[in-house]
Amino acid sequence: MKSDNSPPRGTRDLLPAAVADRDHVLAAITEVYRHHGYHRIETPALEDIGRLTGGQGGENEKLIYRVLRRGLTEPLAEGVGLADLVDLGLRYDLTVPLTRFYGAHHAQLPLPFRSFQFGPVWRAERPQKGRYRQFYQCDIDIIGEESVLAEIELIEATVAALDAIGLTGTTVRISDRRLLAAVAEHVGLPEQAWDGFFITLDKLDKIGWDGVSAELVESRGLAAEAVTMVRTQIERLRSVAIDDVVDTLADALPSLDEQVLTDLGSTIAGLAPLAESSGSTWEFDPTLVRGMGYYTGQVFEIVHPDSSSSVAGGGRYDRLIGRSLGREVPACGFSIGFERIVDLLGGTRRGEQVAVLYETDVPAAEVLAVARELRSAGRPAAPVRRRGKFGAQLDRLTDWGFTSFVHLGTRRDSAAPWAERPLGER
Amino acid sequence: MKSDNSPPRGTRDLLPAAVADRDHVLAAITEVYRHHGYHRIETPALEDIGRLTGGQGGENEKLIYRVLRRGLTEPLAEGVGLADLVDLGLRYDLTVPLTRFYGAHHAQLPLPFRSFQFGPVWRAERPQKGRYRQFYQCDIDIIGEESVLAEIELIEATVAALDAIGLTGTTVRISDRRLLAAVAEHVGLPEQAWDGFFITLDKLDKIGWDGVSAELVESRGLAAEAVTMVRTQIERLRSVAIDDVVDTLADALPSLDEQVLTDLGSTIAGLAPLAESSGSTWEFDPTLVRGMGYYTGQVFEIVHPDSSSSVAGGGRYDRLIGRSLGREVPACGFSIGFERIVDLLGGTRRGEQVAVLYETDVPAAEVLAVARELRSAGRPAAPVRRRGKFGAQLDRLTDWGFTSFVHLGTRRDSAAPWAERPLGER
Repeated sequence: MKSDNSPPRGTRDLLPAAVADRDHVLAAITEVYRHHGYHRIETPALEDIGRLTGGQGGENEKLIYRVLRRGLTEPLAEGVGLADLVDLGLRYDLTVPLTRFYGAHHAQLPLPFRSFQFGPVWRAERPQKGRYRQFYQCDIDIIGEESVLAEIELIEATVAALDAIGLTGTTVRISDRRLLAAVAEHVGLPEQAWDGFFITLDKLDKIGWDGVSAELVESRGLAAEAVTMVRTQIERLRSVAIDDVVDTLADALPSLDEQVLTDLGSTIAGLAPLAESSGSTWEFDPTLVRGMGYYTGQVFEIVHPDSSSSVAGGGRYDRLIGRSLGREVPACGFSIGFERIVDLLGGTRRGEQVAVLYETDVPAAEVLAVARELRSAGRPAAPVRRRGKFGAQLDRLTDWGFTSFVHLGTRRDSAAPWAERPLGER
Repeated sequence: MKSDNSPPRGTRDLLPAAVADRDHVLAAITEVYRHHGYHRIETPALEDIGRLTGGQGGENEKLIYRVLRRGLTEPLAEGVGLADLVDLGLRYDLTVPLTRFYGAHHAQLPLPFRSFQFGPVWRAERPQKGRYRQFYQCDIDIIGEESVLAEIELIEATVAALDAIGLTGTTVRISDRRLLAAVAEHVGLPEQAWDGFFITLDKLDKIGWDGVSAELVESRGLAAEAVTMVRTQIERLRSVAIDDVVDTLADALPSLDEQVLTDLGSTIAGLAPLAESSGSTWEFDPTLVRGMGYYTGQVFEIVHPDSSSSVAGGGRYDRLIGRSLGREVPACGFSIGFERIVDLLGGTRRGEQVAVLYETDVPAAEVLAVARELRSAGRPAAPVRRRGKFGAQLDRLTDWGFTSFVHLGTRRDSAAPWAERPLGER
């Protein structure tokens, strides 16, 4: 009986051409990161449910796939709750596992530790076009480096990785969480209201100043004069050239911690030598928030004209490792939106492949001998039995990714020479 | 507060050296399989629970990680059972997903389809040394080829992959499910007792003829004379040279289907040309069973003197795809025991890596300039801040996998030349 062979709702199968495209992108990124000193690690897909629901994941914690304890017996005891039944969950990001990993293994790891992770994560999101419930994340992190050398290195490596896969024309947006905090403080917002203030400002690109102003007054409790002050300050900072950022900030936000200015100046200066060779440009964007609440310093993202959302994002999170390790360790990370980049690049990259097309009466030994001879000559080869009309089968071979074929015909002389012939492009 | 940072019970983290070893093995295997015409595919980690518990997985179905439905509300309704709460599970192998995948996508796939899968699977087994609850499987399968050309190709590609990673000295054991069935029939066992008979014979290597004979009498209901017949037949077949297998079988089991003999003869002849170039030898082993109930024809496994269990195994399963697709499609697969092979190979393979060791007062711009210069010259490089005693830090750099270093000293002249120096082997 034929059954429904779809993968579970919201997930997908990857066919050979898609896997080849993804592997091509991953190989290029991996080589760049390795060259920049990052080491790949792996953690299990499952984590203890308590760790996944510890607050670090923000909204993602609502999207966890929860795993039933093993060995449960029925009937369930009266009054048993879901929490009693669950001990594990599938990870929704690679940052929660990384902080646990560092807590467990830091004694054996380099200092600073440059981590590279590539792997699937799971989120039970409402299915929609282009979003999947299992998708891959691709993160680099530097743990144990307190200076902005980490930020510069991460931006440099990520831009180099995008260059290597041919994604040029990108813009790196840079800011610092502490800037918007200073603005919030400047207009007299209490600290517990800052996160909401950040969330509203983050929408500026989408809803414009009219929308942001209205939301700041209605939902965030700012007075109209305070909103005007915020707008004036941010507009002034937004228009500034990257080399004038530090001076302008010092002037506009005199209460700002000196370290924020020094750090921004260092990051900008550190990236300057790349201006000529890189396929990216960078700019200062004071409205940049990045969603995660755990960022403590500089934040950054990379945008591309063909993508409405960012293709990479990250920042410094100096207080996250401490929750696992028991002492604070500075950390900074940058995550490439792997799925989005694969979609942006499109196209299929296939190598050459020879079909050894044999009529049914050709002995297996002959078919294999030809395939072996081709492979020995460095040509990937695979036998395919002749079926149906010849021309139609050649078309199918082309569709399937074969680039040439050898035809072994009926009643052929096994000593007869054979020739490889190209298959037409479709 | 320091928390327990272990991964979930029975799972493990993979540190950089382990990942590098695994990637090295995987890259070599992938290249061989690609060269032999296999295409990598990927399916999601989650499958519908009904599919995972359909009987195809044998004992593995008892080890499934079950995933709670999303959006469940509490309190749970009275009398609700675990089955009501679960809709998905983590896959325990790559064969169940492959049969679903083929059912869903066969119209877009080559015929025959040569599939290569590499990915994690999950089994909630009792934790024990060297066995993990998340581990990787590495399978090739040929779907749509009814002749033993598939078997020959699979054995050839797998042996080539093991050769490529340096695992030589292996032996390929070959048999056919239909042989033992003929023996069982010969001694008058009813068909429903055959699986038990196979399971007992599979223990011959471990418990010897005394153990097997006892179990056949006590648990499988054979008469003592039948056991003697079985033993006589199998011993005769076991000692036979590979080139005499077909003649001996025809003589010993006259009721055997002619096709079984033809197939075995073809496989043996098809592999013969590899005898000189391969790092493997092959032998006929009539007691070979391979656990899975779905095998229908030839079965094979590869053993290595340093491993007590097989390093690869597979066989023909012509009736499995039909369950998903609604019509029977011949299929045959071979799975490499990836984790076991990585353990067997041991050793760590690390490339060169340069540490740019800088005193704290060296400006970031200078550190970065040196790292960039090294990378431009093709040398992977990463900055490391000077900490503690110099000699002790050099030892740590070596431990961390660095192979050389550049020291940027205090109050150095930024125009001064620098030199790369080797780090000693430990």
